[in-house]
Amino acid sequence: MSLPESDKAYPIEHPPDTLVFELTILGSNAAIPAHNRHPTAQFLQIDQHCFLIDCGEGTQMQMSKFKIRPNRIHHIFISHLHGDHYLGLMGLISTMHLYQRTEDLHLYGPVGLSEILTAQLKYSDTRLSYPLHFREVDTEARQLIFENEILTVETIPLRHRIRCAGFLFREKPKKRRLRKEVLPADISLAHIAALKKGLDVKDAQGNVVMENEAYTLPPRKSRSYAYCSDTRYHEELVAQIRNVDLLYHESTFLDEEAGRASETFHSTARQAAAIARMAGVERLLLGHYSSRYKDLNPFLEEARCVFEASVLSVEGESVVVPEE
Amino acid sequence: MSLPESDKAYPIEHPPDTLVFELTILGSNAAIPAHNRHPTAQFLQIDQHCFLIDCGEGTQMQMSKFKIRPNRIHHIFISHLHGDHYLGLMGLISTMHLYQRTEDLHLYGPVGLSEILTAQLKYSDTRLSYPLHFREVDTEARQLIFENEILTVETIPLRHRIRCAGFLFREKPKKRRLRKEVLPADISLAHIAALKKGLDVKDAQGNVVMENEAYTLPPRKSRSYAYCSDTRYHEELVAQIRNVDLLYHESTFLDEEAGRASETFHSTARQAAAIARMAGVERLLLGHYSSRYKDLNPFLEEARCVFEASVLSVEGESVVVPEE
Repeated sequence: MSLPESDKAYPIEHPPDTLVFELTILGSNAAIPAHNRHPTAQFLQIDQHCFLIDCGEGTQMQMSKFKIRPNRIHHIFISHLHGDHYLGLMGLISTMHLYQRTEDLHLYGPVGLSEILTAQLKYSDTRLSYPLHFREVDTEARQLIFENEILTVETIPLRHRIRCAGFLFREKPKKRRLRKEVLPADISLAHIAALKKGLDVKDAQGNVVMENEAYTLPPRKSRSYAYCSDTRYHEELVAQIRNVDLLYHESTFLDEEAGRASETFHSTARQAAAIARMAGVERLLLGHYSSRYKDLNPFLEEARCVFEASVLSVEGESVVVPEE
Repeated sequence: MSLPESDKAYPIEHPPDTLVFELTILGSNAAIPAHNRHPTAQFLQIDQHCFLIDCGEGTQMQMSKFKIRPNRIHHIFISHLHGDHYLGLMGLISTMHLYQRTEDLHLYGPVGLSEILTAQLKYSDTRLSYPLHFREVDTEARQLIFENEILTVETIPLRHRIRCAGFLFREKPKKRRLRKEVLPADISLAHIAALKKGLDVKDAQGNVVMENEAYTLPPRKSRSYAYCSDTRYHEELVAQIRNVDLLYHESTFLDEEAGRASETFHSTARQAAAIARMAGVERLLLGHYSSRYKDLNPFLEEARCVFEASVLSVEGESVVVPEE
């Protein structure tokens, strides 16, 4: 089977010597697809690690449209089992199988996800070409669910009609950067490692021969992304997401529908902005728009009245979190 | 919740006094969506009765694109539980619920469908706004699964890797048509009914006063549509679909891939045409194209060498079966 899609050409240039941290919107709408907007899905790349966050119906077609190859993804995080957040998952899993994937795929989601997918695999008599791993997520407590050499993923308990967790992606603290232009050419690997850790280089007698600050620059920023969908407005969330670089907070409604938002355990754009402001985040990304709204500009205007650094989720567009 | 879609405006004019019999293609591709083609789904309207046949991922978006309102559908037929034939069903069911549907919805499909959907409804904590009925279909034997005043639906056992049934939609025999221009103005309803049944009108003494053939025309044709996907080439199918007006027979591959077709329990365009020819059908509709093919013209050319009245499934296009 040939792979018709090529890797995505990044629309935004990343400065040299910095790591990619880029979120691409695949679906931005709430429950009913409308106005050419699709149910929720986001593709997150941090360095070479690719994650899918939620996977509404049609996600594999959106990935194909935006030239993201399914087999780049090794970890998929599902916030909750309302259909607009996971109904594209079985199709994507199946397509990966038809592409003869062999690498492991890890799924993180609430109780029930494994049962549903296992039944679907059973009745289609599918023995996947690759290992599929389920990790059941506790949606009631903060939990470390993924860790590799450069980042962690933790759950964020949310308040929705059914069990629902957001996800916090955080880069680990980074090492100090070497000032290559002032380093001696014959410096040893051990000394380089010491400098990167913030230590001075000492001679055999314990005298400082290279003062750390003269040879290094401070570490680059450890960036973070908090994904919060779906949730009612609740201020306890603030402590969970304080100071993140990028916050996605659902904004299903405008504030004129605050009553309906509360009844259905959703939020308004103004409420999302209020949370962003209280949490002191760098940037707020709105999304999960109700199909009753065709024009999204009122969402942006409403949010910016409370929190200026607000942007809209737009399918096919990416948000880059800078490292500097 | 407002209904943004309006009813479909028929692209083809139906003659007056005839009933609609029109099939609209919503998805035409095999397992992996590609080349802007979607997994299988078809919308069939016979008179005012609307049916959905298979429901691959994205069917509800395709319906929205082609202006077919979900709530027009009361019966959905699922041929088998490979994802490309049913993964759009849960999303469609959910959208009908969000549109606050109240009318019954009937699902027909193989064992497993009810278990999968029931689990999905349970974990999303959805109590549907309308009654949902499951009818488990025996895929091994011809079975009458639906009947109303004007038509029947029967299963067609197919040969695929898993349990799979096609569906035969047939209009019931119709009544004779009145020649209104020669009918006396004072004719009674009882006499009209007798004429439509093909009887002569007699007086009290039993003498024929209106000879049927002078006052009526023969009934219009009872039309039929056979949906056969997915299936390996097998000639036992011919007896099941003899003389239908329209046959959809899957053509996943071109004949150069006949070996692969056989291994995967699929058919080639030439094989579909051979079945159509042996069964003496009026017209053959090809579809379920493998994603390896971008250009579909070779399918049409290959089929027409064997069976001239072959056409391609094209998404958004309709095939009308004439009543005359």
